[in-house]
Amino acid sequence: MKVVREDKYEKLMDLAKRRGFFWPSFEIYGGVSGFYDLGPLGSMLKENIRRLWLEYFVVKHSDMAVAIETPMVTPEVVFKASGHLESFTDPIVQCGKCGRVFRADQLIESATGRKVEGLTPEELTRIIKEEGIKCPVCGGELGEVRLFNLLFQTYIGPYKRDVGYLRPEAAQGMFTSFKRVFTVMRQSLPLGIAQIGRVARNEISPRQGMIRLREFTIMEMEFFYDPEEPGEPPYRRFGGKLRILTAEQRVRGDEKPITVSPKEAVEEGIVKNPWLAYWMLVSKEFVKELGVAENETFFEEKLPEERAHYATQTFDQLVKVSRWGWVEVSGHAYRGDYDLSRHMKFSGKDLTVYKRFDEEKVEVREVVKYDKALIGKLFKSESRKVIEIITKLSPDQVKKLKSSGKEVLEVEGFSIPSSAVWVEEVKEKVTGRKFIPHVVEPSFGAERLVFVALDKSFVEDGERTYLKLPPRIAPIKVAVFPLLSKPELISKAREVFNALLSSGIPSTYDESGSIGRRYARADEVGIPYAVTVDYQTLQDSTVTLRFRDTKEQVRIEVSEVPTKVRELIEAWRLEE
Amino acid sequence: MKVVREDKYEKLMDLAKRRGFFWPSFEIYGGVSGFYDLGPLGSMLKENIRRLWLEYFVVKHSDMAVAIETPMVTPEVVFKASGHLESFTDPIVQCGKCGRVFRADQLIESATGRKVEGLTPEELTRIIKEEGIKCPVCGGELGEVRLFNLLFQTYIGPYKRDVGYLRPEAAQGMFTSFKRVFTVMRQSLPLGIAQIGRVARNEISPRQGMIRLREFTIMEMEFFYDPEEPGEPPYRRFGGKLRILTAEQRVRGDEKPITVSPKEAVEEGIVKNPWLAYWMLVSKEFVKELGVAENETFFEEKLPEERAHYATQTFDQLVKVSRWGWVEVSGHAYRGDYDLSRHMKFSGKDLTVYKRFDEEKVEVREVVKYDKALIGKLFKSESRKVIEIITKLSPDQVKKLKSSGKEVLEVEGFSIPSSAVWVEEVKEKVTGRKFIPHVVEPSFGAERLVFVALDKSFVEDGERTYLKLPPRIAPIKVAVFPLLSKPELISKAREVFNALLSSGIPSTYDESGSIGRRYARADEVGIPYAVTVDYQTLQDSTVTLRFRDTKEQVRIEVSEVPTKVRELIEAWRLEE
Repeated sequence: MKVVREDKYEKLMDLAKRRGFFWPSFEIYGGVSGFYDLGPLGSMLKENIRRLWLEYFVVKHSDMAVAIETPMVTPEVVFKASGHLESFTDPIVQCGKCGRVFRADQLIESATGRKVEGLTPEELTRIIKEEGIKCPVCGGELGEVRLFNLLFQTYIGPYKRDVGYLRPEAAQGMFTSFKRVFTVMRQSLPLGIAQIGRVARNEISPRQGMIRLREFTIMEMEFFYDPEEPGEPPYRRFGGKLRILTAEQRVRGDEKPITVSPKEAVEEGIVKNPWLAYWMLVSKEFVKELGVAENETFFEEKLPEERAHYATQTFDQLVKVSRWGWVEVSGHAYRGDYDLSRHMKFSGKDLTVYKRFDEEKVEVREVVKYDKALIGKLFKSESRKVIEIITKLSPDQVKKLKSSGKEVLEVEGFSIPSSAVWVEEVKEKVTGRKFIPHVVEPSFGAERLVFVALDKSFVEDGERTYLKLPPRIAPIKVAVFPLLSKPELISKAREVFNALLSSGIPSTYDESGSIGRRYARADEVGIPYAVTVDYQTLQDSTVTLRFRDTKEQVRIEVSEVPTKVRELIEAWRLEE
Repeated sequence: MKVVREDKYEKLMDLAKRRGFFWPSFEIYGGVSGFYDLGPLGSMLKENIRRLWLEYFVVKHSDMAVAIETPMVTPEVVFKASGHLESFTDPIVQCGKCGRVFRADQLIESATGRKVEGLTPEELTRIIKEEGIKCPVCGGELGEVRLFNLLFQTYIGPYKRDVGYLRPEAAQGMFTSFKRVFTVMRQSLPLGIAQIGRVARNEISPRQGMIRLREFTIMEMEFFYDPEEPGEPPYRRFGGKLRILTAEQRVRGDEKPITVSPKEAVEEGIVKNPWLAYWMLVSKEFVKELGVAENETFFEEKLPEERAHYATQTFDQLVKVSRWGWVEVSGHAYRGDYDLSRHMKFSGKDLTVYKRFDEEKVEVREVVKYDKALIGKLFKSESRKVIEIITKLSPDQVKKLKSSGKEVLEVEGFSIPSSAVWVEEVKEKVTGRKFIPHVVEPSFGAERLVFVALDKSFVEDGERTYLKLPPRIAPIKVAVFPLLSKPELISKAREVFNALLSSGIPSTYDESGSIGRRYARADEVGIPYAVTVDYQTLQDSTVTLRFRDTKEQVRIEVSEVPTKVRELIEAWRLEE
């Protein structure tokens, strides 16, 4: 089985390079690992995936979501606040002999099979010593394990004090600009702020092709909501259930995901809040458009040691692909108020939101009161200081001080008579509530989806190899052929081709080689429809329209080609 | 006049921030100059401009152009080869007292009014000394002028030897991957390779808002063609003429652009080659879609000292905007074979292309011949070495050596009889030709176009301020309003809104405030169409459709709203 799968991967990689989906970047200089170019077909496939994502996450949610764009180069303070400077690290170890650097955890896992995720550098160093693990290249002695930060570092402007980093996620742009967007959007919650943009992660030695890149395009949404009144997500917009493998299942070795509706998942406490569950539902629907059926994907809850530093619950949406097995196509993190709280602290700005109650409420509140006259009499010139001390006490502190029944309260060196300080209940009108919104985040890597879409659509059917790419994401929608390379057919075929281009339908024209070979060439890159101009066309203005997946052919009017193709693309649905 | 213009800019900036087009990034941390966020409206405006660019430069040119995507992080060797490490610099000078750094040329120009573009650091230092220019902030003494490289530097992976830079243009990705794309595209020329992607330039102290950013999105095409047989561009696809201000005109102080057809411009030697002229034509048409009429833009030829190091002719397309005056919206550089030649040299890879002749040609070629027997007899054990020396000589070298009439040729210490070496003409069949393609490059900055489109569309019309954005690029196409905030009207209006969202038409819904105020809010952000649900709607299923620019209203069927809006968007043309 394994050989067959690797074989498919090799064939796909060959196709990707030969026909122009993707290839390693900087090839003429020997390449740099972790960087891939998207070629003519790959870039259009990605463009279509990108537009579909915008449609699902923003346009279809225009009542609650918007997109923004923020820079990739980011000043240091942002990643101090976000915790990335401290926590976005991998453990590395260097060989004392050849100087090569390795991921310490991967080295240990491949040498011993031990899972070491979450261990400290000290613990990893001890394991390397105990197990006698040596440099896998030269056999040299390995040094101490240390943490390597995966942020690409640079300087902004001409001063060395102005350190900047390339962002490893788009999210921080949404957090630092949250208040501005919230204001622009007339201060209503829930509010999703989405972004499609470039990110970079300085991986030590990426070796998984398009699956693990040092630079890629993230498609990410930070969805802000009121944790006390999250509201009911519009589940009805997207049908279906979620397949979830919980952390608890994983711990006891259960590998079979359960199937629940998003609403049930929340009610049963499997997913910590309704919006996390809702965006998982949307993600499942979105990925279906890329050719991944519902039963081919599930959500795996991460264990605490597998989660990023900002998350209190995380699910990875997994899809099985050739060579790499189950890979994450989207991540769903419950970030709570972590990021906004941190940015409040580091910027000193108020990032809370204020929610006006529908009706004014009367709230009973405890306040600390004191006998000003008595204190003045007792403490004279120091009475102002004593009052200052008293006003800083909370009602609870006062009650605690008095609870012992003492006659005198000892506070910061002053002995205050118990009768001079007391707690009183006051009634207050409250018009609203200030709070830090909570956040759930669905996040996708676009290039990985390009690979997944190709892998899922790769079909070997006897002599024929083709990509059954969903028409909506297929880079080229129509191939136009003259049946034979004759001037009268070529001229008519070029007319059809130009009509398609004017209609804005990405198309290709091909007149070289046998018609069978041209069909095969079109099938190989997933062009869903082929239009052939033959001698009958010259008589009755009809052409053959051929379907990639079934090889079926029908005759249609030349004039209706663009409209018919558009209809077919719109009508297409994944068979399950 | 000047006051009014600045006023417009301030108003536009206020609108941009208040309604969510753009604002300075990282505001909560005090901002970092040269970085802007695109807000909910700005990011969609940019998305539409981006799609339109792809349509004009790639989809409408599917017979000769493709798009690719390459990384922003780039290994050092690429910019060594491209010349950016050496030449992508600005002259800077530091104050010895306060330590601040300034652009030396800008400092001199603002202190003395002298134009100093193209001068060396030594010359700039001398002017600073001669003119007694001091630090404009603290009055301190300025140091020596030196060159500051504008590439953001970083390291790729864990080794400090692996220097990388953020690309300042997308172009190098097209050059380093040219051979791969050329192969994928079945080796045909001309071939345009386009890319939309992020670039970064570490400007010293950017102060021109959205006009000069440290990070932005470039939309760029490298168009490769055979310089000996460039072919005829399809001028007919885009009508009209070009307005050009030549370098020669500029030198003699003429400020009035000439108007020529692209073909004439080439024939008259104003534009150095037909493809440069053709893409200028396409650019003019593209910019028209953003609301810039033909008579509001022209192409200014750059003077030699204004050109980038790789260009032999450059035109900037200029548009006049508030505050900043004439700004460049696109650059058109004739890069010749500079980049491919440099990458051939630095990579050692053959980046030439081979063009098979339609018919085999017979070419007469000179070759160096020698008398092997004679040389063997004369030089014995050294004869192999002598032959090696002879075969390295070019026919011209041999002719020169023999032209003096000497009996003996002195070459590398050997005395060879003249009769032993001669030049002969041979006839050869040649099937094709190897050459390095030439390149023309049209290049746009997307964020700058966002600003230009807003500036061009900003209208103050009595009490009303609105954006007459072309409907195709307007971020939101339709606003839906219930006439009054009554349940039955709200419910119907929400139905219309949902139908628009399902049709994928970006729309907004608003029920708060008077209908007049809601129209004003929609006009202010350039929503071209507004649909209002009133009591008549409940009776006859019609709504009012209001046009932003004319305030005209018509009644249409509820059911035809999405179709009608689509038709209006498609049919819209810029009035000139």
